[in-house]
Amino acid sequence: MTGMSPAECRGAVQPRRWPPAFAGLLGLALAGCATTMAAPQPSPQPAPYVRTSPEPLVVIPPAGPPNSMRWLYGSGEAAALSIQAFNAFRDYALGAARTRPRDSMVLAADATLAAPRYVPCGNKPLAVVLDADETVLLNLGYEYHEARSGMPYNQQVWNRWERTGADRVSPVPGAVDALRALRQAGITIVFNTNRQASQAAATEAALAFAGVGPARHGETLFMSGDDDSGSRKDARRARIAERYCVLALAGDQLGDFSDLFGASTLSIPERRRLAAAGAMAQRWGNGWFLLPNPVYGSGVRGSFDDVFPQDRRWTDPGGEE
Amino acid sequence: MTGMSPAECRGAVQPRRWPPAFAGLLGLALAGCATTMAAPQPSPQPAPYVRTSPEPLVVIPPAGPPNSMRWLYGSGEAAALSIQAFNAFRDYALGAARTRPRDSMVLAADATLAAPRYVPCGNKPLAVVLDADETVLLNLGYEYHEARSGMPYNQQVWNRWERTGADRVSPVPGAVDALRALRQAGITIVFNTNRQASQAAATEAALAFAGVGPARHGETLFMSGDDDSGSRKDARRARIAERYCVLALAGDQLGDFSDLFGASTLSIPERRRLAAAGAMAQRWGNGWFLLPNPVYGSGVRGSFDDVFPQDRRWTDPGGEE
Repeated sequence: MTGMSPAECRGAVQPRRWPPAFAGLLGLALAGCATTMAAPQPSPQPAPYVRTSPEPLVVIPPAGPPNSMRWLYGSGEAAALSIQAFNAFRDYALGAARTRPRDSMVLAADATLAAPRYVPCGNKPLAVVLDADETVLLNLGYEYHEARSGMPYNQQVWNRWERTGADRVSPVPGAVDALRALRQAGITIVFNTNRQASQAAATEAALAFAGVGPARHGETLFMSGDDDSGSRKDARRARIAERYCVLALAGDQLGDFSDLFGASTLSIPERRRLAAAGAMAQRWGNGWFLLPNPVYGSGVRGSFDDVFPQDRRWTDPGGEE
Repeated sequence: MTGMSPAECRGAVQPRRWPPAFAGLLGLALAGCATTMAAPQPSPQPAPYVRTSPEPLVVIPPAGPPNSMRWLYGSGEAAALSIQAFNAFRDYALGAARTRPRDSMVLAADATLAAPRYVPCGNKPLAVVLDADETVLLNLGYEYHEARSGMPYNQQVWNRWERTGADRVSPVPGAVDALRALRQAGITIVFNTNRQASQAAATEAALAFAGVGPARHGETLFMSGDDDSGSRKDARRARIAERYCVLALAGDQLGDFSDLFGASTLSIPERRRLAAAGAMAQRWGNGWFLLPNPVYGSGVRGSFDDVFPQDRRWTDPGGEE
């Protein structure tokens, strides 16, 4: 799994469908059911990529946004953290522009995470590359809709969001000022997004509305559908690195930096260790910059066993309350 | 609301209690109920600080961890972002140590966020100040327990966690290396936590186990109960700043930097704007460093109306699916 837009798998909870004869009784019984209620017997954890059919018979919308959204979209903490990341991104790129590095921040085609090598800069014009969704844009309109509906991610709904929601986004805090400063320094801003090439004009409009544009498809905006790599971004990065000396990368998912983090052989804990160790650990905040996104994507995966190691389990010695 | 430990309010969802006669029928009807199910009629959003009584009659544990925990504890993305923040914290403090600043990073007692002034450094020994929970420590044991149980935050459970969970924590990625480098440079590491002074030895043990110690209560560890300010940290910061030239602050909540972010007159959107604008916006990553925490605390609050502004609402033009 590489860098995923909301158009890719989301780790959302799936509502269930009920036989019609049960629905009436269920409706009554579920009155007041809180969002933490589920079947009394321990249920196996749902496969995270199982899609429901389009028409569940009983779906009850949640009473409030999930904590991930409260934090990312509502908190001063997430705003501060995003500004912190964008200021660091800006300062790093401005510093690199002054010294004109030999190497870019785009991994070479035959590089590995254990032995990274980078595409050389040569005399190419200076640029930075950023993801769009939840890197420079907050998809407030879509996320509000999805959270309110209680429904899982739906590709068709997202497609309509891309087409019609350009004026319902906001910039990620810190993005506007940082990108303005980089443009003023003569650095080209390039976007590498998994939004769809077939709807490029709408994404150009969203970026402009958020104040981080302009972006032109094929010049400073590269999208899913530009090649046959789907949601994998290495091929687009390679194209961008042929034209530009890429000083820094910014994204909310590891696939915004390298497809190598999405190898299907990696378990969730292995992927976390890979990002945290070795040569690549030194890259974070030092050419590669993360923006936070606990709402969706490749960073929002896992069962209890994937997320919590066995040797850190704790039970309350006082007994359950 | 200032910097909150898990011992403070959490924005968790509350399970509901059912009359006994209903419980059997409900158990049957809830078979297979997914975690997004609630009452069929739109329910008013629950008051976020309402506590249930200690013994709900029907609580069904969730099938998997919430997205906030999957991201913070399981993802390579959160690990990378934490390393990015700690590397920046380290580099900033090392740089400040070389130049010996006139002013510390602790706001003066009469400062405002609009007109910040800082406690002068004088000739005081150099230090940095960090929060503990989800700043240098990941409370994996406690969070696993709480997530698995389906129960909301409970002070007594947390108290037992503080006492018995010292070897079920892990360090926040990046913390161990950063603090080691700062100690090697002669900078004192001071912790300012809302964990309880009455159980200080257990917190000293947790910090040591995580590899970010040592910490000594009253010298390099300041806690809730040290004074009568409760969970507000300004008074403890002032004490620390009397003894040390505080070069940088790190925390996961705005109260780790100033109690001014917790003014009860601030709405959730106002608090976010306050953190993102004006003089304080320049502080993030520049003396004040955020670590991510979408799991609990003052950054995890709000109704739909608090989190999603009206002018960014979007409805699906294609109709509900």
